[in-house]
Amino acid sequence: MSTASITEKKPDAAAFARGLEGVMAGQTSICSVEQGKLIYRGYEIHDLAANATFEEVAFLLLEGHKPSASELKRFKGEIVAERSLPREVIEFIKSCGPMIKSGAAVPMDITRTCMSILGNLDKDAQDNSAAANLRKAKRILAKTPTIIGHMQNVIDGRPLVAMETGGDPTLDHAANLLYLMTGTKPGAEEARVLDVSLILYAEHDYNASTFTCRVISGTLSDMHGAVTGGIAALKGPLHGGANEMAMEMLREIDQYTGGKADERKINEFMQNAFATKRKLMGFGHRVYKNGDHRAPILNKLGRKLAEKRGPEWSKWFDMGDIVEKIMLRDKNIHPNVDFPCGMTYFTMGIPVPQYTPIFVASRVTGWGAHVMEQHADNRLIRPLSQYVGPAETTW
Amino acid sequence: MSTASITEKKPDAAAFARGLEGVMAGQTSICSVEQGKLIYRGYEIHDLAANATFEEVAFLLLEGHKPSASELKRFKGEIVAERSLPREVIEFIKSCGPMIKSGAAVPMDITRTCMSILGNLDKDAQDNSAAANLRKAKRILAKTPTIIGHMQNVIDGRPLVAMETGGDPTLDHAANLLYLMTGTKPGAEEARVLDVSLILYAEHDYNASTFTCRVISGTLSDMHGAVTGGIAALKGPLHGGANEMAMEMLREIDQYTGGKADERKINEFMQNAFATKRKLMGFGHRVYKNGDHRAPILNKLGRKLAEKRGPEWSKWFDMGDIVEKIMLRDKNIHPNVDFPCGMTYFTMGIPVPQYTPIFVASRVTGWGAHVMEQHADNRLIRPLSQYVGPAETTW
Repeated sequence: MSTASITEKKPDAAAFARGLEGVMAGQTSICSVEQGKLIYRGYEIHDLAANATFEEVAFLLLEGHKPSASELKRFKGEIVAERSLPREVIEFIKSCGPMIKSGAAVPMDITRTCMSILGNLDKDAQDNSAAANLRKAKRILAKTPTIIGHMQNVIDGRPLVAMETGGDPTLDHAANLLYLMTGTKPGAEEARVLDVSLILYAEHDYNASTFTCRVISGTLSDMHGAVTGGIAALKGPLHGGANEMAMEMLREIDQYTGGKADERKINEFMQNAFATKRKLMGFGHRVYKNGDHRAPILNKLGRKLAEKRGPEWSKWFDMGDIVEKIMLRDKNIHPNVDFPCGMTYFTMGIPVPQYTPIFVASRVTGWGAHVMEQHADNRLIRPLSQYVGPAETTW
Repeated sequence: MSTASITEKKPDAAAFARGLEGVMAGQTSICSVEQGKLIYRGYEIHDLAANATFEEVAFLLLEGHKPSASELKRFKGEIVAERSLPREVIEFIKSCGPMIKSGAAVPMDITRTCMSILGNLDKDAQDNSAAANLRKAKRILAKTPTIIGHMQNVIDGRPLVAMETGGDPTLDHAANLLYLMTGTKPGAEEARVLDVSLILYAEHDYNASTFTCRVISGTLSDMHGAVTGGIAALKGPLHGGANEMAMEMLREIDQYTGGKADERKINEFMQNAFATKRKLMGFGHRVYKNGDHRAPILNKLGRKLAEKRGPEWSKWFDMGDIVEKIMLRDKNIHPNVDFPCGMTYFTMGIPVPQYTPIFVASRVTGWGAHVMEQHADNRLIRPLSQYVGPAETTW
């Protein structure tokens, strides 16, 4: 793996790394993705998943330190107060049913447009100061679950849940998201599992969507524009879209095996996939070479939830275990966090096309922190490219 | 600020380039930005500006070669046929007046949302095949001037020009853009000057907005999402937004000098700017160290147009010449293409906040070509970052 040359003149062909693999693109105080650890501003992800709430992690990422009790109370109050959506965004969401039904749009695309319209209405939109950026990041955090909830209500053909308030002020971020989607307040365990998944998804240094946010904000463009671009990037199946694709693959395996966690049939399915060079989503990671340590955290919580619901739910985790085993045995590739995420959200009854929008509802915290960090010490992100096109000629 | 332990190969500070300056991020057949030349698929920019039309350049970039007469005719027909906007986008544009009047949104932000909604309605939106990408790139090219025109009509409080057709089918891209904005068909010279500016703006290898498009599409996300992110990036004053900022600065100088191209007063203004470390937009370039050779092409055409309009118009170019002279003398920095662009569009009576959206109307060709190139031989773009945050601790 080559690190790119940093010389004044154009490096030769050998000197560039496809996809910037292994290239150090800048510094950050927000996150460290290491082979053995994932650190958010000094706190390791296992510690956070066990001992923090998503709101605490959101505060940590956006405001830069662990909140005191009074800071957390203030922060939660600010978020609750900003949950409702402007009329224009609600009107757009109300119109999205045919866009989705026709196949032109998926929920990630609707989320992207809603974020862009939010920017068009935000009175701080043109202000890149640290204070305005923080206000905008909090509003984006507060409003994203409402976008998802209202959208799902439209898809389900039901009235928008809590349209005036964007939820129930007694519910935390994760629980409120489920409430907005269904109109039913979730149980404590379900809410906590979603909460932990949001903690795991919140931040991951220079991943493709966050890097998109940094490239956009590096032109001194604004927070909402950057986050809109981040959503566009997260959609891709090589990035956030993998949690949806992983579950779709398991559903296909379920069809293939006749609904059983049958190792022989699953192996047959996978050998066919390998033979046709089909890419199995939810496996492998650009940075983690020995496995994504977020995956077992979520797998354990998701399986526990599924086992409580009964064998027709825990079978998905049994199937997942077999898939993981075969992938490791034949390809030496570990699952990433998107693999157990798919099964976990499925167990919670969340519609598959909302898995990546829910990832957005968490990752907006990391994106917001990175936009602020980029603006605080900015340098335009503008690499070079190597021309391999036709030789010069005249028109 | 302490640096936490990072495993294995932690590069030292010297090993990363801020803003990826000088870093080769990949290959392209589309464009070569060199110190002495700018090449679009083998054709040098002076040659194209003198001998090609924007539609020919758009074809070259999107379809990969210089069009034959029949190919050009087919291409122009396809573009004309796709100019009108879907009802949902028109409705959104009709609602944008208060967003702009309130200061929450600028035209670039409205353009971004329109592009996102177009994606939500495009029947090919989820298809990343080469054929679908080309169809989408053409639709985006065809519809962008209509977005700008209708938006300006709303800002001006007049009915939308050619709402059913998106223009006059006898007019080419540049002329139709002016017609949509004003309801008046432009003269041939005016149309040609805009046409040349679109040729100059069409493509520039891995600039920040194009690189944004490539990072987004590198996750295997879709064309409209990538272009939406590209618009967000182009808005920044360190990128496309510079053409607006350059003109705003000249208007400020005009105020300062009492409306005269007075070298002594302009020098005074600029020395004040230097003393307060104010950044003057439209000067300098990440890649071009000895000047942007697009700038003199547009300066010459814009000045000629201004001189025909009379001394109250050519005075802007006289002022511009003095500013350029002082920048070169005191800072050794050359103007980039955004500097003459501001004066040229001003001479044509185009409202300043539409300069960057017009840049979009051209650059969508480059973006479309890069998204297609990225998808054709994809590798996720995911660099690393160096952690400089707090040392590890427990929650």
